[in-house]
Amino acid sequence: MSVARVTEISATSTTGFEDAVRVGIKRASETLRGVRSAWVKEQQVRVEDGGVIEYQVNMMVTFVLDD
Amino acid sequence: MSVARVTEISATSTTGFEDAVRVGIKRASETLRGVRSAWVKEQQVRVEDGGVIEYQVNMMVTFVLDD
Amino acid sequence: MSVARVTEISATSTTGFEDAVRVGIKRASETLRGVRSAWVKEQQVRVEDGGVIEYQVNMMVTFVLDD
Amino acid sequence: MSVARVTEISATSTTGFEDAVRVGIKRASETLRGVRSAWVKEQQVRVEDGGVIEYQVNMMVTFVLDD
Amino acid sequence: MSVARVTEISATSTTGFEDAVRVGIKRASETLRGVRSAWVKEQQVRVEDGGVIEYQVNMMVTFVLDD
Amino acid sequence: MSVARVTEISATSTTGFEDAVRVGIKRASETLRGVRSAWVKEQQVRVEDGGVIEYQVNMMVTFVLDD
Amino acid sequence: MSVARVTEISATSTTGFEDAVRVGIKRASETLRGVRSAWVKEQQVRVEDGGVIEYQVNMMVTFVLDD
Amino acid sequence: MSVARVTEISATSTTGFEDAVRVGIKRASETLRGVRSAWVKEQQVRVEDGGVIEYQVNMMVTFVLDD
Amino acid sequence: MSVARVTEISATSTTGFEDAVRVGIKRASETLRGVRSAWVKEQQVRVEDGGVIEYQVNMMVTFVLDD
Amino acid sequence: MSVARVTEISATSTTGFEDAVRVGIKRASETLRGVRSAWVKEQQVRVEDGGVIEYQVNMMVTFVLDD
Amino acid sequence: MSVARVTEISATSTTGFEDAVRVGIKRASETLRGVRSAWVKEQQVRVEDGGVIEYQVNMMVTFVLDD
Amino acid sequence: MSVARVTEISATSTTGFEDAVRVGIKRASETLRGVRSAWVKEQQVRVEDGGVIEYQVNMMVTFVLDD
Repeated sequence: MSVARVTEISATSTTGFEDAVRVGIKRASETLRGVRSAWVKEQQVRVEDGGVIEYQVNMMVTFVLDD
Repeated sequence: MSVARVTEISATSTTGFEDAVRVGIKRASETLRGVRSAWVKEQQVRVEDGGVIEYQVNMMVTFVLDD
Repeated sequence: MSVARVTEISATSTTGFEDAVRVGIKRASETLRGVRSAWVKEQQVRVEDGGVIEYQVNMMVTFVLDD
Repeated sequence: MSVARVTEISATSTTGFEDAVRVGIKRASETLRGVRSAWVKEQQVRVEDGGVIEYQVNMMVTFVLDD
Repeated sequence: MSVARVTEISATSTTGFEDAVRVGIKRASETLRGVRSAWVKEQQVRVEDGGVIEYQVNMMVTFVLDD
Repeated sequence: MSVARVTEISATSTTGFEDAVRVGIKRASETLRGVRSAWVKEQQVRVEDGGVIEYQVNMMVTFVLDD
Repeated sequence: MSVARVTEISATSTTGFEDAVRVGIKRASETLRGVRSAWVKEQQVRVEDGGVIEYQVNMMVTFVLDD
Repeated sequence: MSVARVTEISATSTTGFEDAVRVGIKRASETLRGVRSAWVKEQQVRVEDGGVIEYQVNMMVTFVLDD
Repeated sequence: MSVARVTEISATSTTGFEDAVRVGIKRASETLRGVRSAWVKEQQVRVEDGGVIEYQVNMMVTFVLDD
Repeated sequence: MSVARVTEISATSTTGFEDAVRVGIKRASETLRGVRSAWVKEQQVRVEDGGVIEYQVNMMVTFVLDD
Repeated sequence: MSVARVTEISATSTTGFEDAVRVGIKRASETLRGVRSAWVKEQQVRVEDGGVIEYQVNMMVTFVLDD
Repeated sequence: MSVARVTEISATSTTGFEDAVRVGIKRASETLRGVRSAWVKEQQVRVEDGGVIEYQVNMMVTFVLDD
């Protein structure tokens, strides 16, 4: 790897944090070529009536520009 | 939402981090009205004989005072 | 507990973050005696073809020197 | 001042950040006695159609327990 | 909201910090669709002859990719 | 321990930082049940005529809700 | 610009944060030559009877030593 | 300068950190117009057989949108 | 000093923070040669019945490998 | 208080951290007028033969320019 | 060393970061007596036409007041 | 890579920061097997008579336990 770019992606899932990571990586890979890794920056949940209804992650996604 | 308060809650589970989040949110919602979201601040595990016996999360829980 | 040491361990799993925590704790406990707890410092994923292929955690592992 | 407590308050305004601070302080003072100061922790805006529609601040509010 | 992207925008104004926020949001919304919120990361001023001549903010701007 | 809450307490003493910790813990324990630990977040002193006249600590105090 | 020094200045205003910035920059420029910029490090308010009575900013002020 | 965008770029060199900065700036300037500055966020090395084989920097690169 | 290593040590005392520092340094020096300095990273207390029963410090201890 | 300056002072003592704070405040007050408070930024110890021989604190000292 | 002061210096060089450090140390030593060490806080570059034209460092410079 | 350990190494050089990195990596590799990477945590210089006499880096060194 020679030069890469890092961008922040936020994604949600009703299932859990790892699913939110997978959702975000899949969506990012549709737009960005060469996605190689992601670093989890934040984890949050949305709550309704005492229950978790949504898991959210913010990730720093690295994608390679030149190899 | 107009004014909200944010408080730190720590919760544990023998199952995993997401379960600890749910345990903490459920318990917080018994005392605090209007819980809307939580931000995971720390994740820890307790260990015995080389195995994880407890998952702990510390969360910043937001609950609305006035809507 | 009287005196303990804290060391950073990085571990990976193809299954998920909690499994990576368990893998790292198990391996650390083979070398270090008295492992009591771990604090999750970082969570990352490796990506290939738009899918997550590896989950990695970095943990600060505490092990007791004297009790 | 002898002993004080510090709690996080989030407040919004359609006017600006300073107004959000005043809104939050006023509301907090209805519930908490002895509010003396606040430290601005975060500033955010909500956006619609390219325009700011709401200003939000998160503050650490200090209120005295005993004098 | 399902997946969003977060990008850093820096904007200046001769009037004040909130105006700089509005300037940056307006300009970002010309290029990026679906801007929903911004988090103020840094606030700076430029000075000449003992007076403030420019207010600058750096913001983390969130825009939705899919809803 | 199952679920705990963490709150910030600020306390002062004319004797020293550890005394300020003890003063704050004692006062917090009058209002909050189940105080178990505290993490020192900040240490400050007030000064008059080149001498320290007051020691202040800010602590994150953990108290158990359910055991 | 070749070599500059950075010093922390704290200033207050009864009007607002931007006025506190201007007050601090003006006062700093009386003592320090070549003030070029300032970075807002902290924003606080003092409160009395549920109202804000003073706005305070702490700034890192940069002034040029040699050009 | 009126509005700018800041993006994270990662670049490597077999020569040293400053060369990695230059490599990243040069490559970023091929895609992004108006690059004005970069702030070094992280410096890392890759190691083989006790020797450094690659220097990597992560930089926050600022490029102007409107002047 | 040419090359040194830094390791995190946690130590407790029933007397106070400085005693905990001394306890940890003494114990670390039994295992590690060439301990030269330590940086206090965290200070905590354990509480029972409204009183402090144990002072804990976490320190980054530096010990020289070669001189 | 209207405008104040904040400067970092490092001081050492063979007795303990609080004595180092007092030593630094006393020395700073000889040069700087209007010292009002100090915030402890770092605490370190120097070690020889397994024993602490010196306590060092770094403090952010605030002194008033105009009242 | 007994009491020292720490001040932030920013310096630039067209050659590289280490040269910028040396430039800043040399200039600081003309005004301040007893400079003993410096800690690199930030590293930045200015860019023109895809090339680095200036290296800048911000350093925390320690100088001894009394020995 | 499956499980790795991360340890902090401090190294000095009279030549420059990159040489200090190489010195530290070389020395660490004599004691630790499987060193793969290092992350530069801090950069400092020692000063005498207005000139830099020593460059120091603190690095987080990663070495693989099992492959």
